[in-house]
Amino acid sequence: MQVRQLGEQGLLKRLQEFCPVDLIGDDAALLTVAAGQSLVVTTDMLVDGVHFSDRTTSPFDAGWRATAANLSDLAAMGASPLGITIGLSLPGTVEVSWVEQFYQGIVACLQPYSTPIVGGDICRSSVITVSITAFGQVSPSRAIRRSTARPGDAILVTGVHGASRAGLELLLHPDQGQGLSAADRAALIQAHQRPVPRLDVVALLRDGGDGGDGLLRVAGMDSSDGLADAVLQICRASRVGAEIERNLIPFPPSLTAWVLEAQAVEWALYGGEDFELVLCLPRLVAQRLVEQLGNGAAIVGRITAEPTVVLRDRSGLYGDEILRLEKGFQHF
Amino acid sequence: MQVRQLGEQGLLKRLQEFCPVDLIGDDAALLTVAAGQSLVVTTDMLVDGVHFSDRTTSPFDAGWRATAANLSDLAAMGASPLGITIGLSLPGTVEVSWVEQFYQGIVACLQPYSTPIVGGDICRSSVITVSITAFGQVSPSRAIRRSTARPGDAILVTGVHGASRAGLELLLHPDQGQGLSAADRAALIQAHQRPVPRLDVVALLRDGGDGGDGLLRVAGMDSSDGLADAVLQICRASRVGAEIERNLIPFPPSLTAWVLEAQAVEWALYGGEDFELVLCLPRLVAQRLVEQLGNGAAIVGRITAEPTVVLRDRSGLYGDEILRLEKGFQHF
Repeated sequence: MQVRQLGEQGLLKRLQEFCPVDLIGDDAALLTVAAGQSLVVTTDMLVDGVHFSDRTTSPFDAGWRATAANLSDLAAMGASPLGITIGLSLPGTVEVSWVEQFYQGIVACLQPYSTPIVGGDICRSSVITVSITAFGQVSPSRAIRRSTARPGDAILVTGVHGASRAGLELLLHPDQGQGLSAADRAALIQAHQRPVPRLDVVALLRDGGDGGDGLLRVAGMDSSDGLADAVLQICRASRVGAEIERNLIPFPPSLTAWVLEAQAVEWALYGGEDFELVLCLPRLVAQRLVEQLGNGAAIVGRITAEPTVVLRDRSGLYGDEILRLEKGFQHF
Repeated sequence: MQVRQLGEQGLLKRLQEFCPVDLIGDDAALLTVAAGQSLVVTTDMLVDGVHFSDRTTSPFDAGWRATAANLSDLAAMGASPLGITIGLSLPGTVEVSWVEQFYQGIVACLQPYSTPIVGGDICRSSVITVSITAFGQVSPSRAIRRSTARPGDAILVTGVHGASRAGLELLLHPDQGQGLSAADRAALIQAHQRPVPRLDVVALLRDGGDGGDGLLRVAGMDSSDGLADAVLQICRASRVGAEIERNLIPFPPSLTAWVLEAQAVEWALYGGEDFELVLCLPRLVAQRLVEQLGNGAAIVGRITAEPTVVLRDRSGLYGDEILRLEKGFQHF
């Protein structure tokens, strides 16, 4: 059945089944923000053919990824999620099952965090377009900002980078990566299709990250646009520089069984969509956090007073490199 | 200059000038919700050619209208605005001046309420699509719900209806309405292009609407989809019925100098986009509120226990009519 056969009211009724009953039926949703917490708001827009496509992304995964990207922005602020709204415009010829699977992907991604869909809008368009706005809360003193990194801070990544870009490559060119095991191949594709926002890191920082030392200063953001972009954005906002050690960048071990190390580092730096957190904090705290996180978490460099971001190569094979913002992904 | 010539970063930089400086530069915006207040969230999606078009709407007005619709949803909940986010996807060939005028319209509509743009997203698409999410706050005991109307309540509209639909008619068919004065014509077009959300009513209800009687029970919603739809939605949510008096429906006096009364009533009931509030509350409170509001505010009927919505005709010219939801605007 197509959306135009079901009609707007019919589609709305089906989609409302994905929302908590008590939040439906008014002009807006009512939510509770805990006392003393700041509200955190972030919004993302995704367009069919630009951000997802039937070629690489099922409707379930498109919904999952869109949601993960927004939850990752909340995690990047140190915030816990409260809810999301979904705006969806689409041609009347889209199958209703596409829309339902898309919503199932959203709900599956939200489920571990008990986060509801609290509202939305649907309308007609010539191209499927999704706008997700996520709300969260954070104690103002625990908010992770981009602007508070200081020279001497360790730069920590919460997991491996380059996996999502590698998974995309496998989806676009299934003949590639013949040397990979079936499990490794599946893991890379999974990293692209079902990224997991690092809200677990937020909980860890909130509950014990300061080791009882009181206020914890953590600068950071997520690596949705690549590790290089994250470090560059933090440095620009904090008016500092950084040294990244090329050999410390964690990428999936399976990658080097498939591509040259130079390619793996390129994907880690610029591939994007790994949705890890890039955090700047005192070295001792960073080391403890790396141990707690495991799974590819690593210290990859340090913040410097010199306002450039340098990719250091201790091996002597590649030479040092100055990183610049221009190399990242650009729309238009 | 076109958007693709300026590039994503260049466009973002221009648009950030419309936002407060302290809210820019992180993965999400931090906002403060006052203690004891609930967060109210609403989202709308608008598509070029469906919700606005260069034929009837300048970019400034498209921005204004989209914003007014969202603020009206907050007003319909009894909430005061805290901020909005804007998702914008558009072809690279759109003129940068179009985008800037669109944002100017948004900011102009927000300005009387000191409400900031707190975030957003831009990306490439084949069709201009706008998603606005608005946040507000309301004391939980003051929230206006659709589900709390009771038999005997007066049904109050905060202003005239049909003006927006009439203005649209004049824009689509400039040869129409030759009998209208230039001022009346301009006022009707203004009603369509620059609707004003009734946040003033929210302030009035909050500050003195209960006349010192303590808790005020007000059911209601806005009339964005027409007066008939609003009454029907409230009745459905509250499991009640209503009688609307045809002769009490307020429409702009100029309308009857142009179209037959039957047409004016049709536009008032089904035209939509007047963005007034339709409130159900005890008759004495309603009468006081009508006096305070003036400007077309009126009691148009009453809530009944019988679960049908009847349009009563005391003149005997038209006969009574049962109103149904199906007649409203349907997408797809």
